[in-house]
Amino acid sequence: MRMRNKPWAEDFLLEHDHIVSIDLARKDHIIDWFEQVQPIHIEVGSGMGRFITEMAKANPEINYIGIERDKNVMIRIVEKAVEQNIKNLRLLTVDAEKLTEIFNEGEIDRIYLNFSDPWPKTRHAKRRLTHENFLKVYETILNKDGEIHFKTDNQALFEYSIESMSHYGMKLKNINLNLHDNEPVDNIRTEYEDKFSNKGFRINRLEARF
Amino acid sequence: MRMRNKPWAEDFLLEHDHIVSIDLARKDHIIDWFEQVQPIHIEVGSGMGRFITEMAKANPEINYIGIERDKNVMIRIVEKAVEQNIKNLRLLTVDAEKLTEIFNEGEIDRIYLNFSDPWPKTRHAKRRLTHENFLKVYETILNKDGEIHFKTDNQALFEYSIESMSHYGMKLKNINLNLHDNEPVDNIRTEYEDKFSNKGFRINRLEARF
Repeated sequence: MRMRNKPWAEDFLLEHDHIVSIDLARKDHIIDWFEQVQPIHIEVGSGMGRFITEMAKANPEINYIGIERDKNVMIRIVEKAVEQNIKNLRLLTVDAEKLTEIFNEGEIDRIYLNFSDPWPKTRHAKRRLTHENFLKVYETILNKDGEIHFKTDNQALFEYSIESMSHYGMKLKNINLNLHDNEPVDNIRTEYEDKFSNKGFRINRLEARF
Repeated sequence: MRMRNKPWAEDFLLEHDHIVSIDLARKDHIIDWFEQVQPIHIEVGSGMGRFITEMAKANPEINYIGIERDKNVMIRIVEKAVEQNIKNLRLLTVDAEKLTEIFNEGEIDRIYLNFSDPWPKTRHAKRRLTHENFLKVYETILNKDGEIHFKTDNQALFEYSIESMSHYGMKLKNINLNLHDNEPVDNIRTEYEDKFSNKGFRINRLEARF
């Protein structure tokens, strides 16, 4: 998700540092940021933020963290969180490879990857959020029963991700090659998911654990 | 693949026992059956036999074995093999769970599973050819670099198979969720594959190893 550069983005985010943290400002102290101690679910690449805000409202017994490295995009999620006064949602602008610096080992209960950038060129495979380098990061921060929940309309990325996860030794379940064919009632669509499903793209989904 | 019962099927197969073996008749002595010692690829569930006969003709440096437990169906494969005088093809009527009795450990180089019966009811999951009980059989007869190549139009069976294989610890590669979208030149279509692709079903494919 690319948006026009907003020179005031950083100032805006700093003004809302009770819910959004820039870079490594909250390093190692994520748990103290929430009002309640409860399981933490994160979304890596939150885009416009519909998924993470709707999830937070639907599941008050979970703490959510939306991660989006583009500060210009993050503004939109902060606005949603403030306007809707969502108590169990915090936001981070940080690169995914730095998550091990932000979180303690085993601190996270679930990771959502929704419509991640497919990086179609082979030479960019290392940038895909299901590359083994990222799986290593997720393995470190997830607790032993923790799961990755992954959705994408991109066929090549889904194929790649199954291969990458199986080579890493992960166990996959609830694979769905056409999620919207018989859409689960609790599926929360991202903005992107709505748009590309309406264009006729199939939505793929899986759950994985180490 | 079910066909009308032919009372003469068993006699017909026995008359052609130089290329087809019934049940465990060739137990432990498969390698002596071929004219040349070369890698052995098998297909479990050969149906009408187009795939295995075309593969055998295209790859004379491989020995092929088509396995089809229905003797009424096997007749059709025997006819093709005889008419086309295919030297590197042998046929077995046996249940897949008995393959460890027929083959020695590590004797097989590749296993093809093409459009296997999906057994859609959960209580029949054990009959699916990618259930862990069958994976155990394949692991025994495949050599350490051996691969399973699997194709199906059935979305639920493909989803199940990825889950089953990943839980077994298998490594997957060359996953393709729409094989005919950009069909490889060396793809040999089964009779069933042609028919269901023409009806608009997507063909899924993967390769897996232990």
